[in-house]
Amino acid sequence: MYYFDNNATTRVAPEVVDAMLPFLREYWGNPSSAYHFGHQLAKHLEEARAKVAALINADPREIVFTSCGTESNNSAIHSTLVTHPEKRHVLTTSVEHSANIKFCDYLQKQGYEITLLPVESDGSLDLHLLEKSIRPDTAIASVMWANNETGVTFPIEEVAAICRSKGALFHTDAVQTPGKVKIDVKELGVDFLSLSAHKLHAPKGIGLLYVKRRTKYQPYVIGGSQERGRRGGTENVANIVAFGRAAELAMGNLQDENTRVRALRDKLENGILTKISKTSRNGAKEPRLSNTSNIAFDSVEAEGILMLLDQAGICASSGSACTTGSLDPSHVLTAMGCNVARARGSIRFSLGRYNTESDVDYVLKQLPGIIGKLRGNTLSQKTTHRPLGQAA
Amino acid sequence: MYYFDNNATTRVAPEVVDAMLPFLREYWGNPSSAYHFGHQLAKHLEEARAKVAALINADPREIVFTSCGTESNNSAIHSTLVTHPEKRHVLTTSVEHSANIKFCDYLQKQGYEITLLPVESDGSLDLHLLEKSIRPDTAIASVMWANNETGVTFPIEEVAAICRSKGALFHTDAVQTPGKVKIDVKELGVDFLSLSAHKLHAPKGIGLLYVKRRTKYQPYVIGGSQERGRRGGTENVANIVAFGRAAELAMGNLQDENTRVRALRDKLENGILTKISKTSRNGAKEPRLSNTSNIAFDSVEAEGILMLLDQAGICASSGSACTTGSLDPSHVLTAMGCNVARARGSIRFSLGRYNTESDVDYVLKQLPGIIGKLRGNTLSQKTTHRPLGQAA
Repeated sequence: MYYFDNNATTRVAPEVVDAMLPFLREYWGNPSSAYHFGHQLAKHLEEARAKVAALINADPREIVFTSCGTESNNSAIHSTLVTHPEKRHVLTTSVEHSANIKFCDYLQKQGYEITLLPVESDGSLDLHLLEKSIRPDTAIASVMWANNETGVTFPIEEVAAICRSKGALFHTDAVQTPGKVKIDVKELGVDFLSLSAHKLHAPKGIGLLYVKRRTKYQPYVIGGSQERGRRGGTENVANIVAFGRAAELAMGNLQDENTRVRALRDKLENGILTKISKTSRNGAKEPRLSNTSNIAFDSVEAEGILMLLDQAGICASSGSACTTGSLDPSHVLTAMGCNVARARGSIRFSLGRYNTESDVDYVLKQLPGIIGKLRGNTLSQKTTHRPLGQAA
Repeated sequence: MYYFDNNATTRVAPEVVDAMLPFLREYWGNPSSAYHFGHQLAKHLEEARAKVAALINADPREIVFTSCGTESNNSAIHSTLVTHPEKRHVLTTSVEHSANIKFCDYLQKQGYEITLLPVESDGSLDLHLLEKSIRPDTAIASVMWANNETGVTFPIEEVAAICRSKGALFHTDAVQTPGKVKIDVKELGVDFLSLSAHKLHAPKGIGLLYVKRRTKYQPYVIGGSQERGRRGGTENVANIVAFGRAAELAMGNLQDENTRVRALRDKLENGILTKISKTSRNGAKEPRLSNTSNIAFDSVEAEGILMLLDQAGICASSGSACTTGSLDPSHVLTAMGCNVARARGSIRFSLGRYNTESDVDYVLKQLPGIIGKLRGNTLSQKTTHRPLGQAA
């Protein structure tokens, strides 16, 4: 298998599986229990909390473990609206993950006012427009750090500063960034930040919300006194330990992601743009995640490309896995002004720790033929445009 | 270790660990993906869904996987309030799990009206009072099936019928029942039912909400189109598969729980009440879960008992693990009219699949000495009251 869909989910690192297994097999107690077999687990929870806190330079007490990035995103916005009932406006962007877009749709039906900021054709944000869009009654702005479809990153530190100056809280969905970008919540100046472990070589079913110290917080999942009263439900010990281990590994791999993985992504992207005619990148070349490339293939449907890639053992996607099966074109690409045909003919390749150069070479070998087949001719390969007799 | 805290959490069955491991090690894809490596997982998700549906005689389409019982409970009440905005009253009982009590506290602060039904001294519910308490504006009644602290069960089928006749939806927190009680949602006539996998020898971090067909549903965790649009967030495949396997095993163990485990519980309870003076059961003898015994020890603090039990390798609890560390006496026992001293001197023993007769014998051997030591004398053992020379 040639896996190029690391923005959808990542392989659970073998080291991470090893770290969590004892908490399934032997140490399966309830950490809230009074006896040693249970409460000894609290120490492992706190060690994992310290590790994920270190990944983002937070204080461990600022970490709330949740079940996923979606829950984290929902929680940050919900908390702010409940703790600031006089403010009824939420600002977000038109290219957020559906966890934000759909939650805001729901809030709008509940009587809140929502502003979805547009983006430029390269996927970037107009910060002047953002500043003008924050109103006195804006409770929170939620702006993603890195786009899951294009990899384009927003200047979160600047956005946080604008929000602060205008009196609104600021949340960033940073689900795509850990292990790719250095995260320092203190430098960023964010009030809330969401992460999801399964994008980071840990298992599904665990996420976190960073809540800046002294920020008023209203829990979303309400029950027992777990997570210092900020998230009910028996702690998912095995997955929390896994998240901690994955965070450690990610810190160690940051350099690799920004050199080796970036070079592989660039080789793949340049190779496709060079070898296959009528192709172009969606979104800015920079600033962008080191691992993501989103390519538009003219006159061909992504569905067909993905099917033939799959037959060749290559995993890629046409956007967020969370919206697969939808007949609508990507809301991210349409927000960037792509027409429907272009949005429907675009493929996301997202690389990761386990990709190798031979994976990239394999895609570059397979893809021209696939596109050519779908376009119904072999002229799609740029080499075929070259006059006969010239060197390649 | 002698584990008597199965209502807090249960050992993950080795068969369940085996079932989930391939989904951590090899099949770690995203089930919403378009390629085979990902979407093949959808089949495993649906198989697991069918297994948990079979456990409660539901249609698989009526199952929404969540992250825990707490999320399921919150979701049922929240959904009903959003889909019935004209109804502002919620009915529940004073002995519910904190997932309901604290969520209702929160709702009250948001302007909803809450009624906490009292219970009788044996922990039972006055159904006439329940019927009278349902108002035209009651959106939902949420009444647990089996109490986590005493094991006392409520007549859920009758409660559901009363709610139906009065036009309110009905949710039951059934977290403590699977594997102990036969669950048939069709016979019960409930609209919503919550389960948590880790009470059932599966790992933490996965639960479900049964939503009766044709019930209006508003998702709580809002994001992608997972769970047919009813719960966002990438599916926790490994834990869902584990839940399915645990449900299968639980169906096979129902007989064992109601014969062997029940006999062990009765032996333990009768042994304590006979061997140790000034002890009594909290809550009705029947109807009650087969595995739970809650005993009041006069003139002694549960904290001390638990500490000495722990030193002897015995795990038990003084109530819900979710409220451990709280200085307040159990809200369940105080709702039953226990005074503070009695509530603070009560211990819950909850048995399970892996308990043996020698576990029970060990507790019966250790406990009289522990209680005697804490009471500062050895007279607490009933045998010492017997005139010398008489047979035991």
